[in-house]
Amino acid sequence: MSQKNTVGIEAMTVPDEPSAVGNSMYNLAKDLFPICRSITGNGVRETLTIIGAKLPNLTIHEVPSGTKAFDWVVPNEWNITDAWVEDEFGQRVLDFQKNNLHVVGYSTSVDRWMDLDELQTNLHSLPDQPNAVPYVTSYYSPRWGFCLTHELRQKLKPGLYRAVIKSECKPGVLNYGELTIQGESEQQVFLSTYICHPSMANNELSGPVVTTELARWLIAMPKLRYSYRIVFIPETIGSLVYLSKHLNLLKSNVIAGFNITCIGDERCYSFLPSRAGNTLSDKVAQHVLKHIDPKFKKYTWLDRGSDERQYCSPGVDLPIATIMRSKYGEYPEYHTSLDDLNLVTPNGLEGGFNALRKAIECIEYNVRLKTTVFGEPQLGKRGLYPTLSTKESANQVRAMMNLISYCDGERTLLEIAEAIGEPMSKLMMILKPLISNGLIEAIRDEAAPKSSLTPLP
Amino acid sequence: MSQKNTVGIEAMTVPDEPSAVGNSMYNLAKDLFPICRSITGNGVRETLTIIGAKLPNLTIHEVPSGTKAFDWVVPNEWNITDAWVEDEFGQRVLDFQKNNLHVVGYSTSVDRWMDLDELQTNLHSLPDQPNAVPYVTSYYSPRWGFCLTHELRQKLKPGLYRAVIKSECKPGVLNYGELTIQGESEQQVFLSTYICHPSMANNELSGPVVTTELARWLIAMPKLRYSYRIVFIPETIGSLVYLSKHLNLLKSNVIAGFNITCIGDERCYSFLPSRAGNTLSDKVAQHVLKHIDPKFKKYTWLDRGSDERQYCSPGVDLPIATIMRSKYGEYPEYHTSLDDLNLVTPNGLEGGFNALRKAIECIEYNVRLKTTVFGEPQLGKRGLYPTLSTKESANQVRAMMNLISYCDGERTLLEIAEAIGEPMSKLMMILKPLISNGLIEAIRDEAAPKSSLTPLP
Amino acid sequence: MSQKNTVGIEAMTVPDEPSAVGNSMYNLAKDLFPICRSITGNGVRETLTIIGAKLPNLTIHEVPSGTKAFDWVVPNEWNITDAWVEDEFGQRVLDFQKNNLHVVGYSTSVDRWMDLDELQTNLHSLPDQPNAVPYVTSYYSPRWGFCLTHELRQKLKPGLYRAVIKSECKPGVLNYGELTIQGESEQQVFLSTYICHPSMANNELSGPVVTTELARWLIAMPKLRYSYRIVFIPETIGSLVYLSKHLNLLKSNVIAGFNITCIGDERCYSFLPSRAGNTLSDKVAQHVLKHIDPKFKKYTWLDRGSDERQYCSPGVDLPIATIMRSKYGEYPEYHTSLDDLNLVTPNGLEGGFNALRKAIECIEYNVRLKTTVFGEPQLGKRGLYPTLSTKESANQVRAMMNLISYCDGERTLLEIAEAIGEPMSKLMMILKPLISNGLIEAIRDEAAPKSSLTPLP
Repeated sequence: MSQKNTVGIEAMTVPDEPSAVGNSMYNLAKDLFPICRSITGNGVRETLTIIGAKLPNLTIHEVPSGTKAFDWVVPNEWNITDAWVEDEFGQRVLDFQKNNLHVVGYSTSVDRWMDLDELQTNLHSLPDQPNAVPYVTSYYSPRWGFCLTHELRQKLKPGLYRAVIKSECKPGVLNYGELTIQGESEQQVFLSTYICHPSMANNELSGPVVTTELARWLIAMPKLRYSYRIVFIPETIGSLVYLSKHLNLLKSNVIAGFNITCIGDERCYSFLPSRAGNTLSDKVAQHVLKHIDPKFKKYTWLDRGSDERQYCSPGVDLPIATIMRSKYGEYPEYHTSLDDLNLVTPNGLEGGFNALRKAIECIEYNVRLKTTVFGEPQLGKRGLYPTLSTKESANQVRAMMNLISYCDGERTLLEIAEAIGEPMSKLMMILKPLISNGLIEAIRDEAAPKSSLTPLP
Repeated sequence: MSQKNTVGIEAMTVPDEPSAVGNSMYNLAKDLFPICRSITGNGVRETLTIIGAKLPNLTIHEVPSGTKAFDWVVPNEWNITDAWVEDEFGQRVLDFQKNNLHVVGYSTSVDRWMDLDELQTNLHSLPDQPNAVPYVTSYYSPRWGFCLTHELRQKLKPGLYRAVIKSECKPGVLNYGELTIQGESEQQVFLSTYICHPSMANNELSGPVVTTELARWLIAMPKLRYSYRIVFIPETIGSLVYLSKHLNLLKSNVIAGFNITCIGDERCYSFLPSRAGNTLSDKVAQHVLKHIDPKFKKYTWLDRGSDERQYCSPGVDLPIATIMRSKYGEYPEYHTSLDDLNLVTPNGLEGGFNALRKAIECIEYNVRLKTTVFGEPQLGKRGLYPTLSTKESANQVRAMMNLISYCDGERTLLEIAEAIGEPMSKLMMILKPLISNGLIEAIRDEAAPKSSLTPLP
Repeated sequence: MSQKNTVGIEAMTVPDEPSAVGNSMYNLAKDLFPICRSITGNGVRETLTIIGAKLPNLTIHEVPSGTKAFDWVVPNEWNITDAWVEDEFGQRVLDFQKNNLHVVGYSTSVDRWMDLDELQTNLHSLPDQPNAVPYVTSYYSPRWGFCLTHELRQKLKPGLYRAVIKSECKPGVLNYGELTIQGESEQQVFLSTYICHPSMANNELSGPVVTTELARWLIAMPKLRYSYRIVFIPETIGSLVYLSKHLNLLKSNVIAGFNITCIGDERCYSFLPSRAGNTLSDKVAQHVLKHIDPKFKKYTWLDRGSDERQYCSPGVDLPIATIMRSKYGEYPEYHTSLDDLNLVTPNGLEGGFNALRKAIECIEYNVRLKTTVFGEPQLGKRGLYPTLSTKESANQVRAMMNLISYCDGERTLLEIAEAIGEPMSKLMMILKPLISNGLIEAIRDEAAPKSSLTPLP
């Protein structure tokens, strides 16, 4: 797709239709879906290897069990090879090989006959969603358990059952992937997604597959204003580990960023703010979503639930916001076996990708703008304004005149777009001839060399 | 009542039911009701003596007539021994002994026969409230008059009437009561109420009786963060006199306070702001009332009418707000004989007392809070978070997690409570284990020793 | 009219009825209506001469063609003596002598026979307003054209037509009128209106006639706090020329001002803000209009369309707002022959004049106010407060007490008026006895001598 080769105006004009990008992301999701991921273990490594095949510069890090991360400690590494429940006749009632959600995450190993009553104390189902297998974990307290549909649970007959879990949990490592892309500035945009969920699609394969595609798009850019830091981590413990290793660097350099999660279904767009609520990331996310769909859902900090809990925690306070499709906890399939590759679609992933891509473009292009002349410029002599003045003349060029009227050297393009109710992408188009005619100049605020915004003219 | 023995979490858990406190306040109101109070005179002294019996440290001050108080002068002292109107047959048509509202406050003495027409020019009644005796005063312009129900007035037959008022108005003193309670800090909370109204109950015996009970509760505290300055004064001239004597001290030390009035009926809760509108008192009052009754009535500075007119006047500007039940001027019985001990009830007084008590507790506990760790603390290992992660885990501990997420060392507990939509009283409970586990620290901003918030753990 | 002889309280009490002022302005409009104005030429000079007869101190300036004005250049001077279209039978189908709107402004000269098809390419009409002759110009691109009603256009039969325009466009001058009125302060209020439209009444003879009357009213004042700078210019190129000559002076001295346009019909009042939106002009305009008609129309900067485009452009940013009746572009007759002296009326002009007069009075009287006593003043002893206190006493003097309560030396009279919901004109009346009793003092902030606000007492 040629539009990936530049940042900016050209990219903004890409029609938001299902395309090769959506299918490419969906295929990656299909490859990753069957793997049994957890916060540590072989599933994480297998996942990072597959992603690494698409992102050759991805570095896979390992952090030993027992390492401190602020108030937390990296737990032992958990691996599971098989698990099932069989009845007195040797029939497998539940089989980990068929669906890895059947086993409670971090279950201890077990192989024991018991009656139904005892088995029940280790079963989890959802009476309100009788056909869904729930997703349950117990990372920090040893126990074992099986998850199943409530329908199946109600059919279980009294009798003896053998519960088998072939797992081990012992000192090992926690893994995460990291990729940096150098731009003109040392200032960074931070993208984080997580790779710790077993077979579920919106939460959470959509995150890593969209992030992979964003990374590929950024790598293909001939020039980037900002540098990019992209991580694939286990949720919570992974972000805590990453923060504890890089806190000062992140606080110094990160000027915006997104936690990328729940970004693959087609039902809606959602926004969740940073703790501060008014960072560049927050403003850009809302601007982009408003122009994609004015009815996008706007959550508050009180609705948070993913790694922004760490990235925006007191004293950390990175400018990280979240752009989603259907938000975790808010759609019925969430954290169950119903969150599958029917719910997530190529179109859904493509929409999510485009929203994040546009948000990044807005960050790249958010320069202050300043007219070079007092008063309105004489646009007619430059062919930019109708020479015949009628009742309607002014309306034909209103967006351009509104834009110029706010280029006071104080407002950024984003602020101007908000003030005049136009999408930044449209204003980038309008800016082109104004900048090439020398009527407007772009001012970049960061320490990086103040070259004019090169891709624009 | 044992819950009065501490400030804070324990007190906050007191159920708001009618109790001994309500009855105690109601009984004091019954004792004070018959006394003929005015802005000066024996009625004020008798009232302060009865209150002083409950508050042994109450100091009764006297200020001579003629003393200047800013733009005002303390008027002569007014006392009345008897008054009546009798008809030609010696029948008493109006009798001060039956209801002290029958005489216009500060009436000059009179003893004269006159015809009905002349008498009428000195009578006051309310055609719209024909069964109510109005409350009328003329403090600063000599005149005499009688107040009566409009029903009675219309029954008066032509003929001769003798009007008798046995009063005198001559140089004397203005009295007020004052009580200070020393806390850890020299910073003060200022409570003011007035004792200048004759036989009326909501406006204004509810004020002094609730204030008396608040003083008793504060005296019983083993420890107080702030000091308390409590005054029982005549309205307007009393607050002006008090301000003129202590203005600099009050401006230096008072960090919050309330004018306590109209606090005894059961119909609603009301709030009237300080002139600034955003002082600690304003914020605390609205926070407390919102959680007692979301439909509390919110007045503006333009609706003011009591001593906040002086306390918040330009150049004075003390942080004084008002928490009321039915506000003066807004209920039909206001300033008439219908404002009696049927309108004011033990329940009504108790509700008012509790609202003010909670407001004071919020002031005492309004510390800034700071997490001691980066990222979210690991609460599971401390038994504060469910170890099994399901769809619902996060909701069970949401208020706690929201609280922690805002403990950034900048926000106070009140600001956090407002941000997360929870009452401060609930957060005080949640804070206890977090502080005792060393995860949160409390920061007191005033000059007083920065000991941690002692009653909390 | 005697009320014109003072600024302030007395003027504010003038009833807003049709009067000599409205008729005087309407008569001036009638005199000016037939003149064929454009941005340069004889029509402008003739117009300025008639206005100069009413304003003897008006200076008429000329600026040569070719003079640079920021990004613009003063165009050649255009004059027209006659123009018509005749058919094969010598019948004049269109005649400039009957309506100067028939010729496109700045048309080149022409005298040529052509068939209807060719003629049509030079005709302008409005299908949606078939009985209106549109107003069309082509200042900066040479072309010729005729404007006519769509009704007439549809009646034109195929055949030959002679199009004659006797015009010339050659180096000459651009003219504008300027008037300054010296006040106590060097700070200025800037009033600008334009005189470049041919025979149309609301847009735009209402502007110059109302501005002329405001100038006469200001000249007649015995004393003014601020100085006034009043210009009659061609729109756009005129304001650019004026700014380019005086930018630094205007930026240093202008504290408020109005672009005066579309101020003569009776349908509504309208407000259009400065670019900043919160200048003194913006605040005063909205305050005055709200009290004239709470339903006045409030436009935004995005609706701009007149000389505020230059006065408020980035880097210029003068505090210029606009008070109008029906706004340009928003009423059906706009820029057509229907915008005539039936649409504009003496009443309409009078209402517009009064709105601007009141706005100027508010600017003149916008002082900070400060009480001279702590607490409320004792108003009873000065006869300003009822001495008998009843249920209703406070309401009788509420506006006065509210005013006093905000005289804290920080707020201006305008801010107080907004805070208490009263018009400034009413508060000026109430202030009189308070200032004369020494209870309130007025503070003028500008560099001018800090004499008390003399016209008030």
